[in-house]
Amino acid sequence: MPIAEDFKSIYTKNWEIYFSQCDPTGKMKLSEMANLFQLTASEHAIKGGLGFFDLQEFSQSWVMNRLRIEIDELPSWTDFVDVKTWIEVLKGAKSIRDFTIEKNGKKLIGASSLWAVFNTEKRRPDILQLDSSHIERFPDLKPTEIDNSILDKDFEPTEVIQYQVQFSDLDIVKHANNTKYLDWCLNTIDPEIIFKHRIKAIDMNFLKELSLHDEIKIQKLETENLIQFKIVNEDKVNFVCRLELR
Amino acid sequence: MPIAEDFKSIYTKNWEIYFSQCDPTGKMKLSEMANLFQLTASEHAIKGGLGFFDLQEFSQSWVMNRLRIEIDELPSWTDFVDVKTWIEVLKGAKSIRDFTIEKNGKKLIGASSLWAVFNTEKRRPDILQLDSSHIERFPDLKPTEIDNSILDKDFEPTEVIQYQVQFSDLDIVKHANNTKYLDWCLNTIDPEIIFKHRIKAIDMNFLKELSLHDEIKIQKLETENLIQFKIVNEDKVNFVCRLELR
Repeated sequence: MPIAEDFKSIYTKNWEIYFSQCDPTGKMKLSEMANLFQLTASEHAIKGGLGFFDLQEFSQSWVMNRLRIEIDELPSWTDFVDVKTWIEVLKGAKSIRDFTIEKNGKKLIGASSLWAVFNTEKRRPDILQLDSSHIERFPDLKPTEIDNSILDKDFEPTEVIQYQVQFSDLDIVKHANNTKYLDWCLNTIDPEIIFKHRIKAIDMNFLKELSLHDEIKIQKLETENLIQFKIVNEDKVNFVCRLELR
Repeated sequence: MPIAEDFKSIYTKNWEIYFSQCDPTGKMKLSEMANLFQLTASEHAIKGGLGFFDLQEFSQSWVMNRLRIEIDELPSWTDFVDVKTWIEVLKGAKSIRDFTIEKNGKKLIGASSLWAVFNTEKRRPDILQLDSSHIERFPDLKPTEIDNSILDKDFEPTEVIQYQVQFSDLDIVKHANNTKYLDWCLNTIDPEIIFKHRIKAIDMNFLKELSLHDEIKIQKLETENLIQFKIVNEDKVNFVCRLELR
């Protein structure tokens, strides 16, 4: 699709927070927050001529590899929030895309994500076939104190929970949706951690997709202010996650 | 809250269908459709001065008892749809609220729901304490061919699936959200039924709430063009559902 007339290199979308996006504390669910990042990223990419349908013409697709989220405060039911997104780096097959969530001009949340261009026929990373020179990069505009990063996946878990991927977990591309990995992990922790809003940062590495009825193991290691997870299917690590608690 | 200046007895809200609301066919997930009905109903009630916060002042709350949905066609990712809602009956403790989903003026879906006013202190149905005389009733404006109804819960299931309510299932009032009951049932059917859009009507009866870590049995009976479910917890039936297939 052509570049939108109102395309801007920093895109802001105002979202209303509905009650169905909130948990029993009345605050936005963490997986819904991750969803808002992905929806806003997708809209920005479409407006910039680098969206889902543009890449599909070259059998390419954007895939999220890493996401780091730093949370000062979560929005509540009936809030309107501005999700801002911009590109820090876009070169070859890779892009660092940043986000903030603001309410009445106050930053509540910052996030940094790493995306790869994936060739859906060759099933491997690929160089972006589209011109992106009209999009300004903001290498110095950092939304988080710490960059997104590769997480350690070699820790020894102290607890293992079994799960089978369900139909309701699948998204439009027939894989378990990114946001579900986070929900599965959060389902295994003490709910008081969420009720007391103790999660101050979340790091996620998305390594391999999961399909309907895949049997997975959610492996967990809890220490005082850190909870680490990996999701394993047939001895392959599909997902690594790290929660930092306040 | 006061009655909104723009309050109308038939309320229309335009919703964009995002990819995170769609299943692998690119069509809206059925549980997301149920969510849109509830969000639209809530907004209409708030505008009419009979919303969540208004009822809370009297320790009352709206609770959905029954929902019947008749589906001609499901909207797709990137569609904009109009969800219309109006009151058929509102008297004492009960209300029948109707819905349609239209795309470009064409009706895709009709739904009829029964709600009760519930006293959250006495934990039982209650007479609505607020004046609703400003809201026009439309007893003859029917969105479905068949009314919402009480479903048979005495059938003998041929399959039973165990499940435990997870944190991600909980909503803002600390119970498993209505839409999750439907997802749990749909997770147990042959995915081809959804891929081929064979579900033409859904009836649901919400009988009893479920809380975190409740152990449930999803009991299923499949016949040629009908799939019946009940969800049982500690020998009590919490939910009954009936899918009519084309």
